Amino acid sequence: MLRAAVELFNRKGYDATSMGDLARELGLTKPAIYHHVAGKEQLLGLALDDALDELTAAVTEASREREGTTAYGRLRAVVRRSVEVLVAHRPSVTLLLRVRGNSEVELAALERRRWLDDRLAELVADAVAEGALRGDVPPALVSRLLFGMVNSLVEWYRPDGAYDTATVADAVTALAFDGLARHETPPDRRDR
Amino acid sequence: MLRAAVELFNRKGYDATSMGDLARELGLTKPAIYHHVAGKEQLLGLALDDALDELTAAVTEASREREGTTAYGRLRAVVRRSVEVLVAHRPSVTLLLRVRGNSEVELAALERRRWLDDRLAELVADAVAEGALRGDVPPALVSRLLFGMVNSLVEWYRPDGAYDTATVADAVTALAFDGLARHETPPDRRDR
Repeated sequence: MLRAAVELFNRKGYDATSMGDLARELGLTKPAIYHHVAGKEQLLGLALDDALDELTAAVTEASREREGTTAYGRLRAVVRRSVEVLVAHRPSVTLLLRVRGNSEVELAALERRRWLDDRLAELVADAVAEGALRGDVPPALVSRLLFGMVNSLVEWYRPDGAYDTATVADAVTALAFDGLARHETPPDRRDR
Repeated sequence: MLRAAVELFNRKGYDATSMGDLARELGLTKPAIYHHVAGKEQLLGLALDDALDELTAAVTEASREREGTTAYGRLRAVVRRSVEVLVAHRPSVTLLLRVRGNSEVELAALERRRWLDDRLAELVADAVAEGALRGDVPPALVSRLLFGMVNSLVEWYRPDGAYDTATVADAVTALAFDGLARHETPPDRRDR
C-alpha cells in the first residue's frame, strides 16, 4: 500500500491526491484504507521515513571519527552510499525532495534534511582541515553541490537503464573528488 | 504578467493553477487577461522559451568549433554560463525543470531540453577525444551529472543569499573539472 501511495503521490502530486484517488488506485474502499492508516499524511510520513532513515544511518556512520579513517575517506564513502540509497529508494527520495513544508509531517522531514546537510557540511570542513580537500570553496556550498548532483539522479535514473548503480556511483565520486580534467591538463586549458 | 504567472505556477503547480487563480493574483478580471493571452498554456510557453532561449544560445555557441578554442574550454565556459543563466532566469528555469510533457507546449520544451542534452554530451565526448577530459566515464552520464548539479541550484540558490553568482560558478567548475581533492592526495585516501 505504501509503495502504491508513493507512486501516486509522485505522479499526481501529494496535495492533489485524495484518499478517494488512493482507494481507486489500490482497488480498495476508503474504509478499508482507513482500517490501516489514519490518513494520507500518515502514508506521507512513512514514505519520508523510508527515504530518510537509511540516509541518516549513512551520514551518522560517516560523521563518526574512527581510527584508521579520514574525514575525506568517510565523505567519499557517504557520497557513494547516498547514490546507492537513492537508487534503492528512488520513489520515496523523489517524494522527499519535493516536500515544501506544508504540514507538520513535511516540516519534520525538512528538519531531518537540514540535520543531514549540516553533518555533511561539517564533514566537508573536516576534510578541508585535514588537508585532503581544496579549501577555496565554502564547505556548505560544496556540500550543497555534491548532494545536488546526487539528488538530480531522481530526475532521470532508471534501474533498468544504461547504467548500473556502481557505474553511477563511480562517476559521481570521480567527477566530484578527482575532477573531469586529466590532471596533466596544460594551464592554457583553464577558463578564458 | 508573465513574471507573476511563473511565480504562481511554481508556487501552486501549473496544472493546479486556473485562469481564475491568475486573475486573482494579478488583480485583473479574466477577460482582461484573455485580452493579452489566449490562455495559461500560452503563458507557460512564453516562460519556457524564456528559460530555453538563453540556454540554447549558450549551448549553440559552445558547440561551434572556433580557431583558438578547445572543446574543453568551451565546455567549461558553457557550464559557467549555465549557472549564470539559471541564476538570471531562476523562476522560469524552475518551471522548465518541472515540465513532464502533459501538453504540446510541454512536449516541445522537453524536445528542446533533449537537444541541449545531446549537444552537451557531444561536447563532453569531443573534450575526451582531444585528451583534456578523463575517458573512463560515459560522456552522456558526465553531461547528466554536470547539468544535474547546475540544475540543483534552483532548489536553494537565492540571489540575496550568502553566495554571489561568480562564487557559485567558480565552485561548480572547480568541483566538476578540477575535483575537490587536492591533487597531491596520497593513494591511501582513495575509496576503501
